Amino acid sequence: MQARKPSGPASRESTRPDHAARPCPIGRAGNLLGDKWILLILRDATLGVTRFDQLRASLGIADNVLSDRLRRLTEAGVLVKVPYQDSNRTRHEYRLTQAGADLLPLLRALADWGTRYTEPGTPAPPMRIVHSGCGGELDNAGACGRCGAAVPRGDEAWVRPWRSPDLLPLAPAVG
Amino acid sequence: MQARKPSGPASRESTRPDHAARPCPIGRAGNLLGDKWILLILRDATLGVTRFDQLRASLGIADNVLSDRLRRLTEAGVLVKVPYQDSNRTRHEYRLTQAGADLLPLLRALADWGTRYTEPGTPAPPMRIVHSGCGGELDNAGACGRCGAAVPRGDEAWVRPWRSPDLLPLAPAVG
Repeated sequence: MQARKPSGPASRESTRPDHAARPCPIGRAGNLLGDKWILLILRDATLGVTRFDQLRASLGIADNVLSDRLRRLTEAGVLVKVPYQDSNRTRHEYRLTQAGADLLPLLRALADWGTRYTEPGTPAPPMRIVHSGCGGELDNAGACGRCGAAVPRGDEAWVRPWRSPDLLPLAPAVG
Repeated sequence: MQARKPSGPASRESTRPDHAARPCPIGRAGNLLGDKWILLILRDATLGVTRFDQLRASLGIADNVLSDRLRRLTEAGVLVKVPYQDSNRTRHEYRLTQAGADLLPLLRALADWGTRYTEPGTPAPPMRIVHSGCGGELDNAGACGRCGAAVPRGDEAWVRPWRSPDLLPLAPAVG
């Protein structure tokens, strides 16, 4: 799919300054993705954390900042608002579109680089990105280092052992 | 190499809030890299644009913002200041360390996603990331789609056809 472009003056101002319309795709992508909260929201959405309250609790982010980033991601076509029932009220959750799901190589690259070149404040076992079928670790292109398979999203799992030893499945794209 | 950590209260405040010391490597990496200017500087440094004046001209960035981002990248061990002679003066350029060179998969992922899901303001031929030996295009893991080789950095070239049809070699890491 083609990611939708922001509309309206406010969003144009906040999400498309300078490099958003340039010929360089790194500049265009970086204009949306060059924001630490955006990256953290995408990480959480990839693990199925899709509701405002869940994201706020997971990230320790201020309401207005979270609202702004969810708006940017929705306008860019990376997340989509989907209604759900909460008791008697209809609320919305924010789920990955195909464009959002296709940010997986970016998240893998961040995880790999962060593991190699940064350190946690207190020692913690490293995150692992694995092929849930065979337990092998994936490379940046999503190939399994053990069995060699090109691992589809549905067979990729993340292990975040500082929280739990469980294999975490990745959220599917909507639609 | 291990990327160095920021030192001093000012840098700690500006580059290590919240997620910089957390167990999650995506959060730690995103704390430095979740900034559009940081990503653009890394793109340029990867193409050998290493001097303050060159970066300023290439990016259209304010002096104080460029200084701040170069300081963050240097403190994080991603760039290193290297002296050079300019007429009779000694100046410094900012070159990639091994940690900086190892951000290549991240830049490739941004280029790939930006090409697929964002559009330039006016139509432009797409950026290509190629194996200079055979002309094949690379996947996210740096493998050549034509000859299958795992392409080393020295044999990877970028083509930015809106500027020139030339194959641009990548800058090597320092030391």
